[in-house]
Amino acid sequence: MAEADRNVIVVGGSAAGLRCACRLARLQPGWSIKIIEAKEIFGYSACGLPYVLSGDLESLAVLRRTDYMVVKDETYFSNYKGVEILAGHRALEIDTEKRVVRVEGPGGPMALPWDDLVVATGSTPVPLPGHRDHPRIVTFHTWDDVKPLKQKLAGGELERVAIVGAGPTGCELAEAFRSLWGAEVTLIDAAASPLPAVLDPEVGALVAGQLESKGVRVICDSPVESIDPGEEVVTLRAGALELEADIVVAAVGVRPNVALARAAGIEMGAADAIAVDDRMATSLARVWAIGDCAEVRDAVTGEKTWMTLGSLGNRQGRTLANILAGREEVSPPAAGTMAVKVFDLAVASTGSTETAALERGVRARSSWITTFERAHYWPDSHEVHLKLVYDAESRRVLGLQAVSEGAATRCVDVASQLLLRRATLEEFVEIENAHAPPFGVPIDPVSIAAFAAQNQEEGFEAASPDLDLGETVVLDVRGREDAEASPVSAARVANIPLGELRARLGEVDPATRIVACGRGTRSAEAARLLRGRGIPVRYLGGGLRWRGSMGGGQPQS
Amino acid sequence: MAEADRNVIVVGGSAAGLRCACRLARLQPGWSIKIIEAKEIFGYSACGLPYVLSGDLESLAVLRRTDYMVVKDETYFSNYKGVEILAGHRALEIDTEKRVVRVEGPGGPMALPWDDLVVATGSTPVPLPGHRDHPRIVTFHTWDDVKPLKQKLAGGELERVAIVGAGPTGCELAEAFRSLWGAEVTLIDAAASPLPAVLDPEVGALVAGQLESKGVRVICDSPVESIDPGEEVVTLRAGALELEADIVVAAVGVRPNVALARAAGIEMGAADAIAVDDRMATSLARVWAIGDCAEVRDAVTGEKTWMTLGSLGNRQGRTLANILAGREEVSPPAAGTMAVKVFDLAVASTGSTETAALERGVRARSSWITTFERAHYWPDSHEVHLKLVYDAESRRVLGLQAVSEGAATRCVDVASQLLLRRATLEEFVEIENAHAPPFGVPIDPVSIAAFAAQNQEEGFEAASPDLDLGETVVLDVRGREDAEASPVSAARVANIPLGELRARLGEVDPATRIVACGRGTRSAEAARLLRGRGIPVRYLGGGLRWRGSMGGGQPQS
Repeated sequence: MAEADRNVIVVGGSAAGLRCACRLARLQPGWSIKIIEAKEIFGYSACGLPYVLSGDLESLAVLRRTDYMVVKDETYFSNYKGVEILAGHRALEIDTEKRVVRVEGPGGPMALPWDDLVVATGSTPVPLPGHRDHPRIVTFHTWDDVKPLKQKLAGGELERVAIVGAGPTGCELAEAFRSLWGAEVTLIDAAASPLPAVLDPEVGALVAGQLESKGVRVICDSPVESIDPGEEVVTLRAGALELEADIVVAAVGVRPNVALARAAGIEMGAADAIAVDDRMATSLARVWAIGDCAEVRDAVTGEKTWMTLGSLGNRQGRTLANILAGREEVSPPAAGTMAVKVFDLAVASTGSTETAALERGVRARSSWITTFERAHYWPDSHEVHLKLVYDAESRRVLGLQAVSEGAATRCVDVASQLLLRRATLEEFVEIENAHAPPFGVPIDPVSIAAFAAQNQEEGFEAASPDLDLGETVVLDVRGREDAEASPVSAARVANIPLGELRARLGEVDPATRIVACGRGTRSAEAARLLRGRGIPVRYLGGGLRWRGSMGGGQPQS
Repeated sequence: MAEADRNVIVVGGSAAGLRCACRLARLQPGWSIKIIEAKEIFGYSACGLPYVLSGDLESLAVLRRTDYMVVKDETYFSNYKGVEILAGHRALEIDTEKRVVRVEGPGGPMALPWDDLVVATGSTPVPLPGHRDHPRIVTFHTWDDVKPLKQKLAGGELERVAIVGAGPTGCELAEAFRSLWGAEVTLIDAAASPLPAVLDPEVGALVAGQLESKGVRVICDSPVESIDPGEEVVTLRAGALELEADIVVAAVGVRPNVALARAAGIEMGAADAIAVDDRMATSLARVWAIGDCAEVRDAVTGEKTWMTLGSLGNRQGRTLANILAGREEVSPPAAGTMAVKVFDLAVASTGSTETAALERGVRARSSWITTFERAHYWPDSHEVHLKLVYDAESRRVLGLQAVSEGAATRCVDVASQLLLRRATLEEFVEIENAHAPPFGVPIDPVSIAAFAAQNQEEGFEAASPDLDLGETVVLDVRGREDAEASPVSAARVANIPLGELRARLGEVDPATRIVACGRGTRSAEAARLLRGRGIPVRYLGGGLRWRGSMGGGQPQS
């Protein structure tokens, strides 16, 4: 078959599949490019679904419109993009010998020939243990999941909601149920803190603190044991918890949709996603896989892994279109850069957590800082909490976690580019940023975190913000007023403001082991002075402001 | 002299000098570290001064306080930082033979010995042609410049203000005089558009549009010829303009303060700043220079140049402290990444403009995009205008200019890291960003600009948003409503919405040379279709939204 009339079939009208098909239609306008999509409604922004439930967005319809207000339906893709979509058609079988896809549609069965086949079948929610088909047990993944929930909420049927899984979707749903609808929300996770895949516990604690401050009950360390749906309520047992709710939302994550590919004999890879090479080729010739159904190389470990990120699928779709059009390209490794809004907080992460790095056997260490995103004197400046994870041997940065009421994603976006280039602490301290008081600070917050890491490697160690101070002698170097207004809770606490410390070094209890202040800056300086006197102290990384935002009655300043 | 009691003298208590001294005091607590500072008030954030005038900040005092509310005076630096500051002391002479600095202070003359001398004498405003000492001709550079102006404004003495120089300070002052005080402000520049050092004309036009929409009169292409201050008014002639004002503010830039260094026989380098190597060593042994008084290597050209950026001085100060403490470090090249607020706009830039690159003989080309910073359906999402400048031969990205009512600095901060690593268009398309609808978009706006550049190099060319359409046949591919509500102004205009174009290709006038739409996305697709039919069109880069924001009666959508 001539290049001029090649047949490309894309299975799945997700972000990745649509991006690939539309780009390819631009590059090769003569080719026949078809998408097979099981649903009637597709091409919407799935990331926006929770915000329809929360009322931040006025309707589902906004998620399916272009920025020039055209609905992205079959007509749009045909007329604007030159791509034919068979919506409401199920792909039943990939016949690799005859090179056809067998499809069941409203008009009956069809066999669509392909020269290249792109599998973009996406992902599907993981069921809970004991999950079964019942109106009181739901998942939240597609367009169809929104309206029934919203109707029940509007009808007052959902006053008590249990959400299992404190990942991004679980956190977004907790906000939606709570903020607009005032439901009694319990968020349950088997891990020690929310967002465990992307945040270490002391960072997740900031998210837990936010959720709790908004009235969400957060129950961690509690794997689900049973779910018993009844007529009136559903009963859930998780860890020590037994709970009755009007509905249980299963948000324990998704898994790749690979049944079709597996049945065709395509090899599976990491996390049971479709195995692909760096050009997104599967084990079968001219069959390709992109988006949530395919594995991806982890930029930090260098190993194949599985990530589910709309931004990644979009990039892969474009790259595969270029490859199909004959270009020499590869899909680069990914750092798993992500963001999630949790009430007033922006939460973002890139690369590896410390927990994950230690599990891999890496000598990972971390620094923590709390600092201002803009000039601290700017009227609506916010603090940002950063945790920087690095390999203490190679000094390579492995990850950054950021939480703020402002632009936490900016820090992670900057770090992501450096991390993908295997940058070390020494490169992270040299970030050149756009500075003006309304927008930023003269030294990038990410560089400040790298300074803290460098200092730590020279012996000026930070302690994790969630360190238990119950047995510890603490020196509080804040000003007297702050020290009195929000005292540190520890075995023993003395207060010497940093400005007096040089003159009063003799007064410091040699048993002091932790120095604390508001954001970690003064205490880091004080720790140097004390170490110079032979007192082996660490400073409280991220300061008491971090600790205070974790919930649990810690001081707030 | 033993390492334990080395004498370090820093001349100048600016950001660079203070950062260097404080860091060095931490690394070498046994050393004697002194700063000689001519002014009594120092250690304040000079970047914040315009915002005191504008009323965004309540007082000058906030600029001189730490984030824990301690005033940064001599006592603070001594007690908190272990650094001695001789404020109100003028350095008169660097004696390189006796290795002393001669100083005149309130207590009379002194000679301070040094083992290492750091010159951090900063910069000073450039005078205007015909500038003389007169109360109606002022500059705006230091703490002392704010109060007299504010008093005159409060007293109603400054109703007509002429600002010469539309650089960052000129733009900030235009906003301050206009927004809080309602003065009649004229902003005058010799260049074709505001911010000419960091923005090309069609980007500067967005800033001019903003200034004009807020009632600032912007007069470009008008070098100052004379200034005649009188009793009641000052008369200013610039280009064709003759203007009477109550005051003229000279904001035509700054120059390095190098008299002291020059008199000591230290070699000068680029732009008459102090010549330094990559370790910030001057031509004299153990004399170093940092901050605004020293030259710096340009990351784009590889040549020495001169930049005046507080963020750069801060980083240099820290690096020099490390070097003085015996570490093997160098100060990396700089991209000149900067930001400025102009009323509602965030304006940011990194690297080289197209104008500057072409002047250097580089085969520079550009792409322009207008896109959303967050999901376009998110309620308070803003558009961002980006211009990406690249070398068409090496495909290396040379610069990015960003303008938006939102987070333009984020785009520039991401681009800055890549640019410093000499990244090409092919690397720019692979930006991995933190995406969630409230914070970002699945494909980074900076990558979208790089897509446009790649497409351009394949023959799908963009035209600059400021292209004169007076003689051009234009195809407007927006929807009918938009095309009627805000018609394109050109020799001849037809409207065929993109969604109908495939079916109506035969109707297109073969004389069509430009395709236009709102943001440049639809027109780029349409241009492919028309080029496929042999009509050699370009699309309007950045779209009609960009054009509409430039002022001058262009359509707004």
